[in-house]
Amino acid sequence: MKNISELQADFGVYIQQNKFTKAPEALYEPINYIMSLGGKRIRPVLLLLAYNLYKEDLEKAMPAAYGIELFHNFTLLHDDIMDEADVRRGQPTVHRKFGVNAGILSGDAMLIYVYDCLMRLGCKEKLPELIQIFNKMGIEVCEGQQYDMNFEEQQNVSISDYIKMIELKTAVLLGTSLQMGAIIADANSHCSKNLYNFGRNIGIAFQLQDDILDTYGDPDVFGKKIGGDIVQNKKTFLVLKTMELATESDSQTLWEWMGKTTVQEEQKIEAVRALFDQYNVRQHAEKLKENYLQDAFQALDLVDCLESRKANLRMLANQLMLRKV
Amino acid sequence: MKNISELQADFGVYIQQNKFTKAPEALYEPINYIMSLGGKRIRPVLLLLAYNLYKEDLEKAMPAAYGIELFHNFTLLHDDIMDEADVRRGQPTVHRKFGVNAGILSGDAMLIYVYDCLMRLGCKEKLPELIQIFNKMGIEVCEGQQYDMNFEEQQNVSISDYIKMIELKTAVLLGTSLQMGAIIADANSHCSKNLYNFGRNIGIAFQLQDDILDTYGDPDVFGKKIGGDIVQNKKTFLVLKTMELATESDSQTLWEWMGKTTVQEEQKIEAVRALFDQYNVRQHAEKLKENYLQDAFQALDLVDCLESRKANLRMLANQLMLRKV
Repeated sequence: MKNISELQADFGVYIQQNKFTKAPEALYEPINYIMSLGGKRIRPVLLLLAYNLYKEDLEKAMPAAYGIELFHNFTLLHDDIMDEADVRRGQPTVHRKFGVNAGILSGDAMLIYVYDCLMRLGCKEKLPELIQIFNKMGIEVCEGQQYDMNFEEQQNVSISDYIKMIELKTAVLLGTSLQMGAIIADANSHCSKNLYNFGRNIGIAFQLQDDILDTYGDPDVFGKKIGGDIVQNKKTFLVLKTMELATESDSQTLWEWMGKTTVQEEQKIEAVRALFDQYNVRQHAEKLKENYLQDAFQALDLVDCLESRKANLRMLANQLMLRKV
Repeated sequence: MKNISELQADFGVYIQQNKFTKAPEALYEPINYIMSLGGKRIRPVLLLLAYNLYKEDLEKAMPAAYGIELFHNFTLLHDDIMDEADVRRGQPTVHRKFGVNAGILSGDAMLIYVYDCLMRLGCKEKLPELIQIFNKMGIEVCEGQQYDMNFEEQQNVSISDYIKMIELKTAVLLGTSLQMGAIIADANSHCSKNLYNFGRNIGIAFQLQDDILDTYGDPDVFGKKIGGDIVQNKKTFLVLKTMELATESDSQTLWEWMGKTTVQEEQKIEAVRALFDQYNVRQHAEKLKENYLQDAFQALDLVDCLESRKANLRMLANQLMLRKV
């Protein structure tokens, strides 16, 4: 059984070995570029860890792990165009470096190559099931991205709408990565579904943690500037919960702060954080996050395999929460 | 056996019955919009005709026909963004009506739904083969679109580069539609490959015919304004063949006309057409088109099935050339 950093390293080698060398270069260079930007490779590692619960020959699951990472990067590529983002992992985004058209078209090719990866697994009898769960997840991720864009325009977003959105946009991909690893390893559907639920719940907890850390985190650990969500007027859990709990007058104040674009950043962050504190929304977020974490670990408990094998998954989940992976 | 217009009508009904009714509406409305804009449904009809060479129960092949039309419209949607096109089938393009972000994201969802359609065929044992040939084609279409964009910037484009580009961008989709129909109908690989070659060659001939008609066609039959390619400085077969054959001085003249953007359209069309005529490039195009048509019908001759069943495919090919379908 390999540990997390060994899997990350193995997967990094696999990416290097599977660089696209085909013509036309203008189509494949952006793909190699975004795939080489790094990142923590959480999703492929989850897939490999799930496979590793049952089997040792990790190279057999590598094409699926690669497909999942291709899919994740395809979503980042197209989302960055939609969000007009300039920087991804400290480097220019694909559309800034190669142009919007290259970003659209190379992303499209990546999505087709995901299915090619599933073909390369060489297990024909499992292909329908793998494609079915992959498709379901892929569509959900598109729906989640659409809800996220809708929410930017929408004044009333409920907490349950928000949780649904982060589930679709982020969490189902973690769940599906685990589920696919288990299926490829011949695990039964009881186990693969519980692994899915483990990943899905971890994903929601992770996003709630992200909302908390963006306002209350230690910038050195978090890796981003604190208060970015507030400056960008993002409708995070903290904002939506404040809206839910606050008096009409305090809600109005929060709206007004979120409408201000010319104000000093520090002043805005301080004022909004004061409203969050007034309604204890950090504690609400922590509590909800803990609930999802608990559900996640309960689902993991239900997975049938050698208990000792689950240690890596528990460790990865905890490291994810602490931003230490 | 159904005729072409019956198949078009059946397919139109199928599209109506399979409208997307899911939330979020902002994701699915653009898909329903582009799918309802009409068009001749050539690709799904080709798939159904290939299936109909062997089998009568056309409803069995409908999900694949629908998937092929979804894929075609996905490429139109994303290509229209890349080309900044305002109008598609007489209506505003998706990104003009719903915005670029909706265009990108709805297109992505369409591509995933294509694979969902293949799943809905319910023939698990053929799924790997169908996905393999679909993926190969999908990647080729992306490569073709990239070459097409490259050629806009590139001064020297050879005739063989151009033929390769139209093969990838346009022709392989016609071939794959037929091949998939044959495979779903349990045809052997000899037949499905010859049907692929029939479609691929028809596709190349069709594009050459398109180049000819854009300059020399009857606007009432062609359905577009004559000379559009010349006005837009497109590197069609007529341009590239003239470049190949012309003296340095005439090539230079053609380049200069293609560089002019402020000139009167009629004057430019007349001058460029005079150069085409001087080098007989229309005849070269007609001859090359005839070669591809001949190859197409030879491939169709090699397909094993009741000869009488091939009549619809021959008729569709001829109608396509005459723009009468």
